[in-house]
Amino acid sequence: MAKRGEFAFIENIERIFGDLSVEGIEGIGDDCAVIPAGGGESLVVTADMLTEGVHFLRVVSDPYLLGRKSLAVNLSDVASMGARPFATLLSLALPGECRGAWAEEFMRGYRELSGEYGVALIGGDTTSSCSGVTVNVTAIGRVGNARIKRRSAARPGDAVAVTDMLGASAAGLADILAGRTDTPAVREHMNPRPHVEEGMWLGARSEVHAMTDLSDGLASDLLHIVERSGMGAEVEITSVPTLYSEESAVAGGEDYKLLLTVAPEAFETLAADFGRRFGRPLYRVGRMTEGGDSVVWLRDGARFEPDWHGFDHFER
Amino acid sequence: MAKRGEFAFIENIERIFGDLSVEGIEGIGDDCAVIPAGGGESLVVTADMLTEGVHFLRVVSDPYLLGRKSLAVNLSDVASMGARPFATLLSLALPGECRGAWAEEFMRGYRELSGEYGVALIGGDTTSSCSGVTVNVTAIGRVGNARIKRRSAARPGDAVAVTDMLGASAAGLADILAGRTDTPAVREHMNPRPHVEEGMWLGARSEVHAMTDLSDGLASDLLHIVERSGMGAEVEITSVPTLYSEESAVAGGEDYKLLLTVAPEAFETLAADFGRRFGRPLYRVGRMTEGGDSVVWLRDGARFEPDWHGFDHFER
Repeated sequence: MAKRGEFAFIENIERIFGDLSVEGIEGIGDDCAVIPAGGGESLVVTADMLTEGVHFLRVVSDPYLLGRKSLAVNLSDVASMGARPFATLLSLALPGECRGAWAEEFMRGYRELSGEYGVALIGGDTTSSCSGVTVNVTAIGRVGNARIKRRSAARPGDAVAVTDMLGASAAGLADILAGRTDTPAVREHMNPRPHVEEGMWLGARSEVHAMTDLSDGLASDLLHIVERSGMGAEVEITSVPTLYSEESAVAGGEDYKLLLTVAPEAFETLAADFGRRFGRPLYRVGRMTEGGDSVVWLRDGARFEPDWHGFDHFER
Repeated sequence: MAKRGEFAFIENIERIFGDLSVEGIEGIGDDCAVIPAGGGESLVVTADMLTEGVHFLRVVSDPYLLGRKSLAVNLSDVASMGARPFATLLSLALPGECRGAWAEEFMRGYRELSGEYGVALIGGDTTSSCSGVTVNVTAIGRVGNARIKRRSAARPGDAVAVTDMLGASAAGLADILAGRTDTPAVREHMNPRPHVEEGMWLGARSEVHAMTDLSDGLASDLLHIVERSGMGAEVEITSVPTLYSEESAVAGGEDYKLLLTVAPEAFETLAADFGRRFGRPLYRVGRMTEGGDSVVWLRDGARFEPDWHGFDHFER
């Protein structure tokens, strides 16, 4: 969904569609909707739309990488529910000059990442566009009901953790805007690896309570957990793992790592197991708090007010 | 999916994704994909993308009606499988001038038609657009496995039938292009009623073999059944029900009625029951044939070669 405040009308959507809820189905409010599928399992479904000039600039975007990324951001949403993605639907609106080699390269990237995770393409649409390229991907996953990880499931005292270092994507975007197109950060921005294996592995651990993916940035995505779980959180900024600026790591977005909350007494064991399985740490960055409905930022234990550029976009 | 030949690369999609098929799932090739959901039921899923300047002109399109139609065309795909639609995901790319009243009106139309069929909005995306409006709707339905109607299930000798008169949408588009905006045909073009009840009712009848919705026009949509079922068909043009031109009825598209094939010995009883249930005829327009892989057109029983404008778009 769009960032808060960008589109006034979407704040009404949950309200005006609220009376159309269908028994047993969880709709808007998490990374995916949840549809019971019998046998103790559910399907999860998510959709993301990318538009030229907003999410990517065609002059600097390799269509092969754009095909991969269009799929990756949706696989990330499925993984953040603890689910295994197995199918997608792809809709493409293409101007005339993109219907040949550009589209072939886009599909090659989409196919390659699909193959890496065994995800089938089961439908979609292809249409002309009078202006730019628009891509919509709908991704579907399957998960045992006991493994579903929701934004709403955090508990006071939970450790807040992330599955990898943050900030590379925002740093990569800054590099691109500065004319540098071949840095490691640019490669992470252009070709994010969705944490599909990590999400399924964490889904199987009952000490993991809430989970979401880091698409808008730690500040904004943690606020989703705070709001849906009805409690506060505090983050120690010096614990947020990054090779780049604090601002990139916290307010940058598009990292597509996972953000989760964990029963505090179980964190060390989980992190040790995670380290053995994935070869890198599970980074603890803060904790959920009983009171409040916002994220409190600490530096060496002392509260401070962030003034990162654009940070107000992420405030309530 | 796009019309044949418009996008060369999509002809390769089934092939390059073929080895990624997932056990039990039916992917590209019908109005919806089919995903087994346990308990003898399946979910069906479809997606359609509408782009400004191609599918609608914003200057002449009422956003309320566009909201209805964006949903209607997807409900029609679900209904054509014999399934009950129960949820959608809506993605919207909106230029700045559409983010206020225009979007509110669009959502009012989308909400109203959702309410008429008890369909929940369970997800989607909203993003900025640097140019026109793009809409993608993913619709999900549920159906008992024995009731699923596929394009591939026609049998030689089957009666070919349609659930309503055809051609109003194409005639309405012609009216709009001629500057007439308040004719009955324009209203049908702008506000098609998806045959959801008809689709579910026909889904429950085992004498109905193949079914699809009439989105591209009778000529093109019957060819989908012909290709997927591996046989021919013949249509008696004087039996095609329309208030408008033959061309509108056969090559026009966007009628969103249903096209089906029926065991010939059961047709009269089915049509009588349909008439009692829906208050109008089930129109028999032709039959499936053992040989051939194309649609043969008859006028009073004599074969002829159609020369409707644009008809070559629909040829193999």
